[in-house]
Amino acid sequence: HVERHFMAGEIVRDAVMGASDGLTVPFALAAGLSGASVPSLVVVTAGLAEVAAGAIAMGLGGYLAAKSEADHYEKERKREEEEIERSPETEAEEVAEILANFGLMQSEYEPVVAALRKRRDAWVDFMMRFELGLERPEPGRAMRSAATISLAYVVGGMIPLLPYMLLSEVFMALKVSVGVTLLALFVFGYVKGLFTGSRPFSSALQTTCIGALASAAAFLIARAV
Amino acid sequence: HVERHFMAGEIVRDAVMGASDGLTVPFALAAGLSGASVPSLVVVTAGLAEVAAGAIAMGLGGYLAAKSEADHYEKERKREEEEIERSPETEAEEVAEILANFGLMQSEYEPVVAALRKRRDAWVDFMMRFELGLERPEPGRAMRSAATISLAYVVGGMIPLLPYMLLSEVFMALKVSVGVTLLALFVFGYVKGLFTGSRPFSSALQTTCIGALASAAAFLIARAV
Repeated sequence: HVERHFMAGEIVRDAVMGASDGLTVPFALAAGLSGASVPSLVVVTAGLAEVAAGAIAMGLGGYLAAKSEADHYEKERKREEEEIERSPETEAEEVAEILANFGLMQSEYEPVVAALRKRRDAWVDFMMRFELGLERPEPGRAMRSAATISLAYVVGGMIPLLPYMLLSEVFMALKVSVGVTLLALFVFGYVKGLFTGSRPFSSALQTTCIGALASAAAFLIARAV
Repeated sequence: HVERHFMAGEIVRDAVMGASDGLTVPFALAAGLSGASVPSLVVVTAGLAEVAAGAIAMGLGGYLAAKSEADHYEKERKREEEEIERSPETEAEEVAEILANFGLMQSEYEPVVAALRKRRDAWVDFMMRFELGLERPEPGRAMRSAATISLAYVVGGMIPLLPYMLLSEVFMALKVSVGVTLLALFVFGYVKGLFTGSRPFSSALQTTCIGALASAAAFLIARAV
């Protein structure tokens, strides 16, 4: 099996996530406003403001979430270490329970428990991984993730907005934006599918549909207001 | 240790995530547009359109992501089952390797490997969990998650937008929106901190700062355009 923590894979995943969101919401907002006959300049203003705000919210939000995960891991690890010092019998029983859940009988798991008890670091690693399901987050990952998502969001957001910035007639810009964005959504959805291992064509359709639905909703709401 | 997959905890986490984003981006967008002297009606239109689009993008996006995780799990599980049928020796060696990584010696892990080999389902469970780090996603979780996030996003988004809908003077609405939203962000950040176990006050400050930064960015961009 391929090593799961392949860093390039994570960067790609963050980029695709950021770009997909960047394509969808600014597109929908711009389309919705155009449909409500808002002047082109205002559409661009709203779109760019949303991209700026969204990129920061996603980027910083993602960074803080990743940092908080790292802090959480360290806190839980310290707690496990203390529990092992303070009540080794209880912790040994927890190991036994985990192994017993795999249908192992006492005679089968007892040597493992005994072995772990002799190796403190391995014992803590075991508890962290198999009891709490936590893995040590890679340092610098929070930063990288945030930067990738933010940048991808901006790039994604520019795609539906460029037509409004380049074309003076707002309904023409709307049509070009729709065409370009749906195409981009399809391509991104396909790439996403390739990376997650789900059927790329289906993923492409789904991503495109979300974009279409989001913009339809924005359109209807904008007309209603 | 508290059971990690406590459903109510997941619902709360999704709600807080959705509401935080809903508070931040619509707020920033509305503030940015107000600052660029855009008419109140257009600010409300843009804000509501963004909330609609964002809620759909986040909700549907989250649903599809969760479904794709579930599909991924089932696919990987089938593959493990086939590998166990086809090359049990290789799979047994992988188990041995995983246990050896915990510092266990052959005499200590060999009984475990032998025991797992006799219990096919337990063996697959072990590989899924300890080799791939995948856990069986709970059914219905995708739906619940999406609904919670979407709804929370809408509720979150209404908070900064209501002042613009209720007050006719746009700069007054801006001030009220800023006050109400920063307060709401603080409260949400605090609650988030309580749930994630990180320092609530620090979490409150961070969430509020992201909101402030996002709206500052939107404000500057809107003025520049």
